[in-house]
Amino acid sequence: MIQIKKIISYALISIIALYTTFCMGQSKDKKPNIIIIFTDDMGYGDIGVFGHPTIRTPNMDQMAMEGQKWTNFYTAASVCTPSRAGLMTGRLPIRNGMCSNKYRVLFPDSKGGLPQEEITIAEKLKEVGYNTMHIGKWHLGHLPEFLPTSQGFDSYYGIPYSNDMDRAGNAEYQEACKNPTAETFQVPILRDTTVIERPAYQPTLTKRYTEEALKFISKNKKEPFFLYLAHSMPHVPLYRSEEFAEKSKRGLYGDVIEEIDWSVGQIMKTLKDLKLDNNTLVVFTSDNGPWLWFNQHGGSAGLLRDGKGSTFEGGMRVPTIFWWKDRIEPEVISDMGATLDIFPTVCKIAKTTVSKEIVYDGIDLSPTLFNRKESNRKTVFYYSGEEIYAYRKDDFKIHFKSKEGYTTQNVITYSPPLLYNLNTDPSEKYNIAAKHPNIIKKMKKDIETHKKTIKPVVNQLNLR
Amino acid sequence: MIQIKKIISYALISIIALYTTFCMGQSKDKKPNIIIIFTDDMGYGDIGVFGHPTIRTPNMDQMAMEGQKWTNFYTAASVCTPSRAGLMTGRLPIRNGMCSNKYRVLFPDSKGGLPQEEITIAEKLKEVGYNTMHIGKWHLGHLPEFLPTSQGFDSYYGIPYSNDMDRAGNAEYQEACKNPTAETFQVPILRDTTVIERPAYQPTLTKRYTEEALKFISKNKKEPFFLYLAHSMPHVPLYRSEEFAEKSKRGLYGDVIEEIDWSVGQIMKTLKDLKLDNNTLVVFTSDNGPWLWFNQHGGSAGLLRDGKGSTFEGGMRVPTIFWWKDRIEPEVISDMGATLDIFPTVCKIAKTTVSKEIVYDGIDLSPTLFNRKESNRKTVFYYSGEEIYAYRKDDFKIHFKSKEGYTTQNVITYSPPLLYNLNTDPSEKYNIAAKHPNIIKKMKKDIETHKKTIKPVVNQLNLR
Repeated sequence: MIQIKKIISYALISIIALYTTFCMGQSKDKKPNIIIIFTDDMGYGDIGVFGHPTIRTPNMDQMAMEGQKWTNFYTAASVCTPSRAGLMTGRLPIRNGMCSNKYRVLFPDSKGGLPQEEITIAEKLKEVGYNTMHIGKWHLGHLPEFLPTSQGFDSYYGIPYSNDMDRAGNAEYQEACKNPTAETFQVPILRDTTVIERPAYQPTLTKRYTEEALKFISKNKKEPFFLYLAHSMPHVPLYRSEEFAEKSKRGLYGDVIEEIDWSVGQIMKTLKDLKLDNNTLVVFTSDNGPWLWFNQHGGSAGLLRDGKGSTFEGGMRVPTIFWWKDRIEPEVISDMGATLDIFPTVCKIAKTTVSKEIVYDGIDLSPTLFNRKESNRKTVFYYSGEEIYAYRKDDFKIHFKSKEGYTTQNVITYSPPLLYNLNTDPSEKYNIAAKHPNIIKKMKKDIETHKKTIKPVVNQLNLR
Repeated sequence: MIQIKKIISYALISIIALYTTFCMGQSKDKKPNIIIIFTDDMGYGDIGVFGHPTIRTPNMDQMAMEGQKWTNFYTAASVCTPSRAGLMTGRLPIRNGMCSNKYRVLFPDSKGGLPQEEITIAEKLKEVGYNTMHIGKWHLGHLPEFLPTSQGFDSYYGIPYSNDMDRAGNAEYQEACKNPTAETFQVPILRDTTVIERPAYQPTLTKRYTEEALKFISKNKKEPFFLYLAHSMPHVPLYRSEEFAEKSKRGLYGDVIEEIDWSVGQIMKTLKDLKLDNNTLVVFTSDNGPWLWFNQHGGSAGLLRDGKGSTFEGGMRVPTIFWWKDRIEPEVISDMGATLDIFPTVCKIAKTTVSKEIVYDGIDLSPTLFNRKESNRKTVFYYSGEEIYAYRKDDFKIHFKSKEGYTTQNVITYSPPLLYNLNTDPSEKYNIAAKHPNIIKKMKKDIETHKKTIKPVVNQLNLR
């Protein structure tokens, strides 16, 4: 009996020793890999574990149950370009000229882009030895000096702006998006700085982005890497590959999300197969809320009010998951976080410092991710173009203005402003402004203080 | 080395043998236990895994991820009494006189109840040797002949109707529900047929129901048992025990749900501790949608339209989980199911037959639960009182009428009727009636055929 015990003990010790050598050794020597999976116009309610009844997302559901599901996570803006500028720089787009009251986003005839002097996540990570790649939608400038390869990425593969741009023919825009031909949208696919396909064959976009991602991960299994995979989908016009055609009960939009879920599954599987899962942070989130103006070609914000283009929650609160095997414990986090926070959080993880001379709007979320500490983010500024339409502090959100629908320029002004408690009233139904004059006063003061930190810069979206 | 291999092999064989003897043997000899956990007015969107951002439900989330999460699961009615009659009998309440156009539910001065000749789940299970208990809200008649102990339950502990009844004083009803005193609602707690407390001390209701449940499970660990635990919460007036006071970010309503989640956790833990988890089916669901009329004292239907009292989805689609360790594999089921189906499903599991002389509206879901077959439920009748207001067949739902809000008797008639595709349009936003005249024609014919199966019976809710 004693002999058996000894044998078992030896076996256990050997296994632990082997584990330590292979796994722990690996994660100590090599900086952690970072993957950001960013979807386009996917709503808060479009994932199973965030409440959608018919879209099947088993891979995202699993990722959410194994990692941290963030339910109060915000983008920097409710439309593409400024949202992405915020993600890449950790700074509100108002600070780098990447939002405008005149043009919502960059268009193919825009001359501007994210200024060279802005420091992106990719640039920070390159400083500390990362291999970097951007796959998918960039939308931070398509002239050579603004492309991903000029902003810290070793390589790029994707469409440099939205997949509904470069429209040919005279079809009405919304109709063209719903029923496009292969020629309707003449968007290019770039490899680094070279156009390699035009018009992009969109049905296989998600699949090809995924293949590129898997190739990049495999190639870099021994080096620390940063992969920024920004799907062009589910932005209209919606496309999915043959394998996903008419597979979802939710129709075309569901097919598209289910292919993205497949893509997430492929990445998770590859990380596991290459034994990189315990040394890779994967962040999944979306650039803004669902484009409700497109009815069933748009997604759902679940119980949240409104969608893309709006400063109500449906426009800027996005379904977010942080996943890292053995480092992040399963949890639902209802504290606040923002895409702005990814920059300082990633810098912390990669052990690189953030300059104190630059004004950052992001907050390091690593204490929450790794030690379940309360999030240090307590406020959110909801910019619409260059203006603050709403502001959240702790439980409360104040609305000064809102835009009625996406396409119209009709701005509604709330005088007196609306006040909601977002924790007890996530759907922004019950205005409680009359009960809280002091909270409103304090919030207005916060905004004045914030405004003083904004310095005038060249508006990049207005350059034509 | 060969010796070590042998030792390990013997050890493994012994463990497998022990496992087989204890676990498999047990489940072969003993009929499976059945637990139904039924909440009151809990909305589709009030559980984390069904999309709520601030209510923490780790136990229900875990149950959903380990078992089957049903996202198209319906109650038999959008209010208490008829919904519960459907659950208990597997028959639409129109067949047993348990719904009315005049009174929504049974009231303390009602003289009626679920007729004696109706066969309940408890009666069926008693036939095959089950010990049965009902804990919580009954609401199928409070005169002695209608009480749970007259309907197949060995014992009963709970409030026989809603916790907002027997109102004392002159306070306006809605105000009384939001700010009750200990004396406002003079509802009794019964033990079997005897009133043991009046007014019921409601803050500890969820806790006491749970304690009763755990006691019943422990007492019956060697006998097959059926436990029907119908929480009085989160029906208004909302109450939770001291331990949950002001713990939830969602406020009082969140506290109440988080205590129910604790209760679910206690039951799961007890099943595991007693090694009953692989021989017990646990079903979690709600009686109807959230009572939106109570604003933040009511819950949320998530992305679904409307709530309690309505025949839109928010009134009758409820968050549902089926859990049975090792028997039910993790899956999200977006096929249709209904509380009406629990009766025949449970009969199948307990190996008892369903009479062919009785018209049942339930469908056996066991092929879906255990073999992931497509659900055989393809239709739902949405009754409002004695009338069919809406009807679902496959993807499509037709609306003939609806009630505007809960308190008003204002009935809206849709002429022509509305038609929605619930799979692609779960929020019932986009009327597609004009495109599908043939589907509408067929659906109307179905309803005529269904109506022919309804025989006139005494209306129990109108008896005073």
